Amino acid sequence: MTKDITAEILSIGDELLIGQTLNTNAGWMGEQLGLVGIRARRVVVISDDRDDILAALGDAKADVVLITGGLGPTKDDITKHTLCAFFGTRLVRHPDIEARIAAFFESVGREPLEVNRAQADLPESCTVIPNDRGTASGMWFERDGRVYVSMPGVPYEMKAMMQQVVLPQLVDRFAPPAIVHRTILTTGLGESHLAQRIAAWEDGLAADRIKLAYLPSPGLVKLRLSTYANDDPGTARSRVDGQAEQLYTLIPELIFGEGDERLEQVTGRLLKERGQSLSLAESCTGGYVSHLITSIPGSSSFYIGGVVSYANAVKMEELGIPSDMLELNGAVSQPVVERMAVGVREALRTDWSIALSGVAGPDGGTAEKPVGTVWVAVAGPGGVRSFKGFFPGTRDLVIKRSALAALNLLRRALLEAVHAAI
Amino acid sequence: MTKDITAEILSIGDELLIGQTLNTNAGWMGEQLGLVGIRARRVVVISDDRDDILAALGDAKADVVLITGGLGPTKDDITKHTLCAFFGTRLVRHPDIEARIAAFFESVGREPLEVNRAQADLPESCTVIPNDRGTASGMWFERDGRVYVSMPGVPYEMKAMMQQVVLPQLVDRFAPPAIVHRTILTTGLGESHLAQRIAAWEDGLAADRIKLAYLPSPGLVKLRLSTYANDDPGTARSRVDGQAEQLYTLIPELIFGEGDERLEQVTGRLLKERGQSLSLAESCTGGYVSHLITSIPGSSSFYIGGVVSYANAVKMEELGIPSDMLELNGAVSQPVVERMAVGVREALRTDWSIALSGVAGPDGGTAEKPVGTVWVAVAGPGGVRSFKGFFPGTRDLVIKRSALAALNLLRRALLEAVHAAI
Repeated sequence: MTKDITAEILSIGDELLIGQTLNTNAGWMGEQLGLVGIRARRVVVISDDRDDILAALGDAKADVVLITGGLGPTKDDITKHTLCAFFGTRLVRHPDIEARIAAFFESVGREPLEVNRAQADLPESCTVIPNDRGTASGMWFERDGRVYVSMPGVPYEMKAMMQQVVLPQLVDRFAPPAIVHRTILTTGLGESHLAQRIAAWEDGLAADRIKLAYLPSPGLVKLRLSTYANDDPGTARSRVDGQAEQLYTLIPELIFGEGDERLEQVTGRLLKERGQSLSLAESCTGGYVSHLITSIPGSSSFYIGGVVSYANAVKMEELGIPSDMLELNGAVSQPVVERMAVGVREALRTDWSIALSGVAGPDGGTAEKPVGTVWVAVAGPGGVRSFKGFFPGTRDLVIKRSALAALNLLRRALLEAVHAAI
Repeated sequence: MTKDITAEILSIGDELLIGQTLNTNAGWMGEQLGLVGIRARRVVVISDDRDDILAALGDAKADVVLITGGLGPTKDDITKHTLCAFFGTRLVRHPDIEARIAAFFESVGREPLEVNRAQADLPESCTVIPNDRGTASGMWFERDGRVYVSMPGVPYEMKAMMQQVVLPQLVDRFAPPAIVHRTILTTGLGESHLAQRIAAWEDGLAADRIKLAYLPSPGLVKLRLSTYANDDPGTARSRVDGQAEQLYTLIPELIFGEGDERLEQVTGRLLKERGQSLSLAESCTGGYVSHLITSIPGSSSFYIGGVVSYANAVKMEELGIPSDMLELNGAVSQPVVERMAVGVREALRTDWSIALSGVAGPDGGTAEKPVGTVWVAVAGPGGVRSFKGFFPGTRDLVIKRSALAALNLLRRALLEAVHAAI
């Protein structure tokens, strides 16, 4: 068994401690480290204070110490000075880095100030990691078999540095146990029901030396399959792929993608591939499905538009819902949601449409239709289909979970429409 | 000068280290501590591992050590056992807590299992903090003048415990330097321009011993005024209030609220107070403004509905935009956005309407209308007004910043409409 390679992450910045900025870097770094077989053992968040930084550096016991923040051009930014003190070295001007900084400023039509040029003053004993996206360089130190890497705190800059330089070099340096993994994205069943459904398959993973992790978030469960590849790199990939294939045959309707994909991207891509268009009629989700779809660059190529029919009057006038249908069934009902889908599809002349009507809460629930009751319909070339979901929780959760359920209903309808056409 | 009271936060949970769950608790706790005069000096995130927890407890040097996570009913949850080891005590069953747990299960119509009842096994030497919102109790320990508080990791449960018990008792126990503060929320000017605009006022704060912090986030800048109240509690409040009053007269159009309020709440409340209704016509924001408004419970009392007119055909048919107006000016133009606002206000028969049309990017920008160009219009009883904003940045930022600009335009129109009526 290869030795467990561990990492510690030091996040430096007053703004992280006072709740002004959420520390998204540390979790992302922990995830990325895990994917190359390095275990993030602890995260320490400290302020831009010399004593606190020195203490945290001294306390770090992991093989890898990743440091972010405190590399800006202002007086508050003391990380590189403190690293000099810790490693017993001094700052020297790096002409190549200074030239990069000057070029960076030139590219945005500005002149670098001396304070910007001084970002090329870097510790003599470190290996400098150039920054493609900004002016704060990274620094790689080694001491007593331990690697320390200091990176900027700006997520967009840090992520590029991690992916292009730091992670590959850590893998070279430590040869952590190589891991093969696939993350399969599911929606439509909660964690415990999903676990029941795939229990027999899960029991078989041990024989293939595959670990399974359930990673739930509102409306989704990610299934991460991973296995060590060191002993047998050739078969590791095929072991994972073979089990993934079995999972696809087991729960085809629940799997919508892999890795970092979002359901709205997957569904949008299916529409684009088919050259088909979409419209929306939203009630309880209040525009959230529309927001998800339009958050994807290029969604205007398939998304025509939608109606948020919050009041019943809008349902009647814009979507052609007969008032007696509303009176008889209530707005949260199968006939109304199906008519909403058909109505918006006709009004906006699209190939497909989605409609939602439900009780988002916190008020408005009844014994018959409690908060979290949501009707979802999809209309398309082959007609209209609908289902009643129950997504109890806060208003925010009801909205998010029903939006995902609606996108998944459309995704499945799109896939079946292709099968039907063949 | 009173001694600086410091805190350290230990966040326990594997899910925080592997990037599955964002550590929102630590920042929130740091902010809340700051508001009562206790400085969060460091946050340490560790996994549910006995040795790592013991090491972190042993390393903690602050006056207050706040611990979250690892209090669930499963085997992975080892925090209370580890606390027993650290404090040299043992678990004993608390009948009163067991009764609370049983009552909690009864309230949701379920029978507690023994594993649930065992959550009433708590360290003998601690003061138990009952949990109003769940089954994991909090624990308060003291040793060597230091206070250790262990709380559940579920944010909703932790926050109630902090606000109802922990923060007030920490204030009693340590009498930290009392701080009087007000957080004033602004929108419409970026941080540096805002700073220029209020520079003279800011210079005058020192004489009143008031500190000012700029807390920027997309589309917003919060201004936090704070002063120590210990020496002179009577005047601290009036010093802060006096300066806040001056700020209100200086930038009335930029201030939309205070504290934790959101712009959509403030705008919604103005509509509710007036008994007036709202409709929306969104193009580039794709339903995001509608989502913001409908995320507020009770928004159905003033929000009638909206149209997301992503394609020009929808602008023409649903909102009555003449095709020659679109051809002549383009969709991102003053005549079109004003006609959108007037059109949706008429179609949905509301008192007010908001319309947006812009270039969200990343594609679609031109030299004349680059990505980030957004026209915003508000129509109301007194007519229609509009302005062109420029919000460069990623697609996500363009959408968020223009949505806030639109809500602020409506807020200002609502306030002026009242003045006009008087």
